[in-house]
Amino acid sequence: MKPKLKVGIFGFGCVGQGLYHVLNETHGVKAEIKRICVRDRQKPRPIGPEIFTFNADDILKDPEIDVVVELINRTEDAFQITHEAMKNGKHVVSASKRMIAQHLSEIVGWQKKYNRSFLYEGSVCGSIPIIRNLEEYYDNDLLRSIEGIFNGSTNYILTKVANEKKSYAEALLQAQEKGFAESDPSQDVKAFDPKYKLIILIAHTFGVFLQPERVVNIGIDKLSAADLAYANKNNWFIKLVAHAARMDSRLFGFVIPQYITEHHPFASVHNEYNAVSVEGAFSEKQLFVGKGAGGYPTGAAVLSDISALAYEYRYEYKKAEQEDRYTFTNDVSLDAVVSFEEGKINPAEFETVKVQTAEHDRRFIEGSAKLLKLKEWSELDNVSVVLAPDCQVRQGK
Amino acid sequence: MKPKLKVGIFGFGCVGQGLYHVLNETHGVKAEIKRICVRDRQKPRPIGPEIFTFNADDILKDPEIDVVVELINRTEDAFQITHEAMKNGKHVVSASKRMIAQHLSEIVGWQKKYNRSFLYEGSVCGSIPIIRNLEEYYDNDLLRSIEGIFNGSTNYILTKVANEKKSYAEALLQAQEKGFAESDPSQDVKAFDPKYKLIILIAHTFGVFLQPERVVNIGIDKLSAADLAYANKNNWFIKLVAHAARMDSRLFGFVIPQYITEHHPFASVHNEYNAVSVEGAFSEKQLFVGKGAGGYPTGAAVLSDISALAYEYRYEYKKAEQEDRYTFTNDVSLDAVVSFEEGKINPAEFETVKVQTAEHDRRFIEGSAKLLKLKEWSELDNVSVVLAPDCQVRQGK
Repeated sequence: MKPKLKVGIFGFGCVGQGLYHVLNETHGVKAEIKRICVRDRQKPRPIGPEIFTFNADDILKDPEIDVVVELINRTEDAFQITHEAMKNGKHVVSASKRMIAQHLSEIVGWQKKYNRSFLYEGSVCGSIPIIRNLEEYYDNDLLRSIEGIFNGSTNYILTKVANEKKSYAEALLQAQEKGFAESDPSQDVKAFDPKYKLIILIAHTFGVFLQPERVVNIGIDKLSAADLAYANKNNWFIKLVAHAARMDSRLFGFVIPQYITEHHPFASVHNEYNAVSVEGAFSEKQLFVGKGAGGYPTGAAVLSDISALAYEYRYEYKKAEQEDRYTFTNDVSLDAVVSFEEGKINPAEFETVKVQTAEHDRRFIEGSAKLLKLKEWSELDNVSVVLAPDCQVRQGK
Repeated sequence: MKPKLKVGIFGFGCVGQGLYHVLNETHGVKAEIKRICVRDRQKPRPIGPEIFTFNADDILKDPEIDVVVELINRTEDAFQITHEAMKNGKHVVSASKRMIAQHLSEIVGWQKKYNRSFLYEGSVCGSIPIIRNLEEYYDNDLLRSIEGIFNGSTNYILTKVANEKKSYAEALLQAQEKGFAESDPSQDVKAFDPKYKLIILIAHTFGVFLQPERVVNIGIDKLSAADLAYANKNNWFIKLVAHAARMDSRLFGFVIPQYITEHHPFASVHNEYNAVSVEGAFSEKQLFVGKGAGGYPTGAAVLSDISALAYEYRYEYKKAEQEDRYTFTNDVSLDAVVSFEEGKINPAEFETVKVQTAEHDRRFIEGSAKLLKLKEWSELDNVSVVLAPDCQVRQGK
């Protein structure tokens, strides 16, 4: 009988505490927590002090510890801890999507170099086992696209705003109180967080490693009351949708709010729930829906990684090894609805214009425009960019 | 470099042909089809005759063949082929849900005895990788319930009947033409097919092996125009729902049509799509949606099993090995809407009655009754049983 894996944890916030409880209430997993490293010496903790340390080396240099679970917010610290741990012969399980998106290709190199695993199911869409499915199950199916709602806090805010006619600020505050939104919500509402997750999923879906700067993200923070009224009037919802697809040998991806019709599968994805839709050449469209935030769902995902380490599981990035490689491009045109204060943007910069209206002191143009033009507009005051419900993506000429 | 797996296939219907094409159009899988055994010598085939044989031993006794893929309808033949193949040292991949539901615990014994794998992702919900997820990913999460729409042809029929106001007979014919319904549709419309799938999933969710006779199935073949009108009037849909859950140490499961509100996640599962909802203690509700029928989606699932055999993958049935075992019971009460021709059933046999109405020459009673009583009623002429939208399950006293 194999001995239990010994686990050292960095960080004891929402996910760390979720993991602690999930592990203690589960029978099947051969793992125990030996030490938890935290930074703040003053903070009251829900469990006794014996297990805590303030010195990273108590975990990193403990030869008994097999697995380091890294659950901290500070990206560079998370990166250093991951490196030290793998160098010292430990497997690493991480939920730091930003750190992973920024450094994935380097860490995959360490996986080979130090012959240790780096797993991170908890970093993407909480409890939805999407990375494991992309790695293990869709291995053979030529994947065409992946898209979804990857951020629980913005989805919570958008749900409250739409269903309960709450103001944006009120909904944000409520999301923070429930622990779905970070104290600094800009990573969520400006769509950086779902972009990091998209970058991670692109590596497993298409075998391409992208730097975050290359991928366009447009947040929900610029949405106006007029946009919400426009959605209501049409019986649409606004969702923050991440999208990546291949077209011949080219690959594109972005995160932009989108109008969704009431019959779209994402329309019934409410509150902190996430959704991922994977389209394969043969399996066709598959939808996964589950809780994308919260200590227990994410803790359960982290625990599944720890459990997989009992048999030395490792992501293989098979698509990155295959011959069909894709070239990433932002040179695409999209169908969008842009609303703006008169004079802010020049309608002649649309490639085509389908509908023009004026509502609530704003002008609305539904038409097709270049992705980078949409990004430029989205950064202006009193302009908001939302993709059209049946948005088509066209390659640049 | 490992040599390619050599595959022998039994049956070349819809799924067999799907598998043939999927395998030929995929790069990554190290497998090739050596021989296909079919029964009908006269039937025209879409590919050349060289690969076909009419003699099972050409596959079963060929020492070069590593994997037998069994895709035939005749249950006992499928069982014999599985036994012979495993005895002869071959892994078996099967999509014969009826055969698996009837013989699973015996075949799991062969897996150990002959040290060969038996995989069957394609037998349950087509392209949805539910068995793999239950085996690999939800291993640690205490699972509470599993439910879903497990039959593509009845869901296709119910969708057409509801959305396009087609008659039941018309919708059934159309499902058969599209290849979603068997030429003998009774296995589907009487809910045997989804029951077999439920039995398979119960083995992987709760570690309990059940004989089909123990599980109640009520079909959609008794639904009347009055029931459909009742659904429409309330803005409900009727779906054929399979359901299993644990309550303390007891386990129950059944397949019965159910009224679904328009906001239920299953309401947007249309046509030949299937859905599976898994509830875990920590990961909470997870929903998987995908095509549940059709040659390509099911062929892709079969191919994923073949591909997993390249690293000798095997289901471990970990929940059957764990200590917490459940006792299966049919002694539960359910909330249902029963419609009937006056005099057919005795309303006093309900445990409680919530609503009574009369519509279209039928009497409707919404109330609570024993599962076995519902089954008994469902077998009478001009009586139909549909679970209530918010159906609660209560244990017998």
